[in-house]
Amino acid sequence: MPLGRWAPLRHPDIADVRLDDVLQALADPTRRRIVRMLIAEGDRPCGTFGLDVAASTLSHHFRTLRAAGIIRQYDNGRQRFNTLRLAELDTRFPGLVDQILHAAAADADPAPR
Amino acid sequence: MPLGRWAPLRHPDIADVRLDDVLQALADPTRRRIVRMLIAEGDRPCGTFGLDVAASTLSHHFRTLRAAGIIRQYDNGRQRFNTLRLAELDTRFPGLVDQILHAAAADADPAPR
Repeated sequence: MPLGRWAPLRHPDIADVRLDDVLQALADPTRRRIVRMLIAEGDRPCGTFGLDVAASTLSHHFRTLRAAGIIRQYDNGRQRFNTLRLAELDTRFPGLVDQILHAAAADADPAPR
Repeated sequence: MPLGRWAPLRHPDIADVRLDDVLQALADPTRRRIVRMLIAEGDRPCGTFGLDVAASTLSHHFRTLRAAGIIRQYDNGRQRFNTLRLAELDTRFPGLVDQILHAAAADADPAPR
């Protein structure tokens, strides 16, 4: 994630998070997989998700999740870490993320690792 | 909805309905409003939703909902009716549509009529 590494990372206030953005962000199996891995294993750097997608695509996915208010990103040394804003999201849209991940499990998503 | 009125209407089998399409279709306040009106008042023709959007835009919204597997459309005389596939959707993604509509109620969606 070389571009913009040192630019300040913008995160929407939870009160400004829009349902449309959350739904659009989660309407993608790779982004749902990122969310599931964060739930299962906690904070982790961008490069460690083991997803078979181009770096630029992955970068786009993380940006989309951050802009939608689903993850928070922070730099630690040379790594950019990701953390899920699940508790915040649950105050705003109770149970929604969980429900979508459950629906995904019924769909053709790859199994969580 | 003049264009394609007499073309056969395609509806995906519920087994082929994709979560990504459902989420994208519901990531729009006008489309969620259509769904809420169908829940509250049952089947109704396209022209009777009283939504303040251009006919072509409305047409696009109905097509999006139909392609995503959320509504079924049928022609009756000169009118095209819409019916919600909620029972089918609930067998595939239990509770999902309801959860999204509840989340929308917590957001800035217009109140249901």
